[in-house]
Amino acid sequence: MCELLGMNANRPVNTGFSWRGFKHRGGDNGPHRDGFGIGFYRRDGYHDFHDLRPATESPLADLLGRDDIAALIMMGHLRHANEGSVEIRNTYPFTQEMKGRRWCYTMQGQLEGFEVLGLTGRFTPLGTTDGEHVFCWLLDQLSQENCDDSTAVCELVRQCGDRLSEMGVFNMMLSDGRTLYTYCSKKMCWLTRCSPFGTVTSLDTGEHIDLASRCDSATIYTLLATAPLTNESGWQDMHPGEAMAFCDGERCDISAPEAIIA
Amino acid sequence: MCELLGMNANRPVNTGFSWRGFKHRGGDNGPHRDGFGIGFYRRDGYHDFHDLRPATESPLADLLGRDDIAALIMMGHLRHANEGSVEIRNTYPFTQEMKGRRWCYTMQGQLEGFEVLGLTGRFTPLGTTDGEHVFCWLLDQLSQENCDDSTAVCELVRQCGDRLSEMGVFNMMLSDGRTLYTYCSKKMCWLTRCSPFGTVTSLDTGEHIDLASRCDSATIYTLLATAPLTNESGWQDMHPGEAMAFCDGERCDISAPEAIIA
Repeated sequence: MCELLGMNANRPVNTGFSWRGFKHRGGDNGPHRDGFGIGFYRRDGYHDFHDLRPATESPLADLLGRDDIAALIMMGHLRHANEGSVEIRNTYPFTQEMKGRRWCYTMQGQLEGFEVLGLTGRFTPLGTTDGEHVFCWLLDQLSQENCDDSTAVCELVRQCGDRLSEMGVFNMMLSDGRTLYTYCSKKMCWLTRCSPFGTVTSLDTGEHIDLASRCDSATIYTLLATAPLTNESGWQDMHPGEAMAFCDGERCDISAPEAIIA
Repeated sequence: MCELLGMNANRPVNTGFSWRGFKHRGGDNGPHRDGFGIGFYRRDGYHDFHDLRPATESPLADLLGRDDIAALIMMGHLRHANEGSVEIRNTYPFTQEMKGRRWCYTMQGQLEGFEVLGLTGRFTPLGTTDGEHVFCWLLDQLSQENCDDSTAVCELVRQCGDRLSEMGVFNMMLSDGRTLYTYCSKKMCWLTRCSPFGTVTSLDTGEHIDLASRCDSATIYTLLATAPLTNESGWQDMHPGEAMAFCDGERCDISAPEAIIA
């Protein structure tokens, strides 16, 4: 399996502190030594970084912890290879351009029989992981359904996630740079931070940080991870079968039309 | 305008020495301060790096010079923004997936009226540069023509390049990970290195390197750049209107069927 990290904010947030803790699961505190990747949606575009080395032994991972990149959405992945060998082409996050937006995908899990998911050919995997095949299949579904808003995308993610989780463990994050979508078949948690900000401690390294000195009072952002990153009490577990969407730093799928009508 | 760097090899080659010299044109020795990018096709996949800072002031650029990545094809770009603001989304190289391969593109030049080049919608620019629009247009042409080998792609690149160079300066590199294509409307040079390797000196930094200690005798590789990188006498200027293809470290378009028949 792997370890996932995600972040969505209403204004650019530096994720160096979260990354410095999280990356220790890629070697020191976990078996996820088969490379890592991290993607950043900034106001001015998307870029990402991939390395085959364990995150705890990579100068690039070290740089990404020091040299903060302020992002609106961030997705990180530490790999423990099962499906697909340890190659750059099999290292998350995967991305594809669809309708003028860069879509980005990470997954933790393992899906038996994923090959039966037919692809149209519009999106073709470059590597051999189950995750990239599923990513291309999800984009096929999204492009066919013409999902025009985040509520519709989140609902499609939930429907697809329900089908995929019958094949095995399927915890994933997906983004188009505006919204961060997630589906949990087994293990995922999340935490929304807003003012007043306090001091928090990394569960992986013991490092403390005073968030108040780094975030202005209007900042709202949500962290998602396979397991809690800090000692904060606000971490909430997702339930198996749950899909969520986060926009502007907060959960945004719960104001879906169904919820309002109910 | 910008500065281009390219490399194609028959076995993985570390490009740290070339990059350490080249990057000085991004700040110290040139006006190309508006960010940089570098893409690597390795045997195990493609990954790239982008930064908005001048290459001479970027910890990432420094790391890429120290932390050699052995690649079969490499494409680097130092930007001097003209069309499109200084944003990550406007920073080369640009990439798109087509038919299961990652295509990568860099360009030096400026094209007036590029907007008239119609796009099918299969590939959509994420930023606002002339170069990315042209890249998407080129991929549209390639996918429509079903170019099945490097000779056919090179010929299409030449035809498209002739049309594009009527709009302005158009020097570019394009790759699918197997072949490196280039078109020169004004300025591009190249050099093929093979055994016996000697000691060479960077024209940008004065740094020397003993290639014989780093390349085995079977290694063949070609460097391309806007201007020569080293003091070697083998640098050749491309002619305006010329398209070339490089595979396995050497020029491969000159063994095209037409040439054999002639």
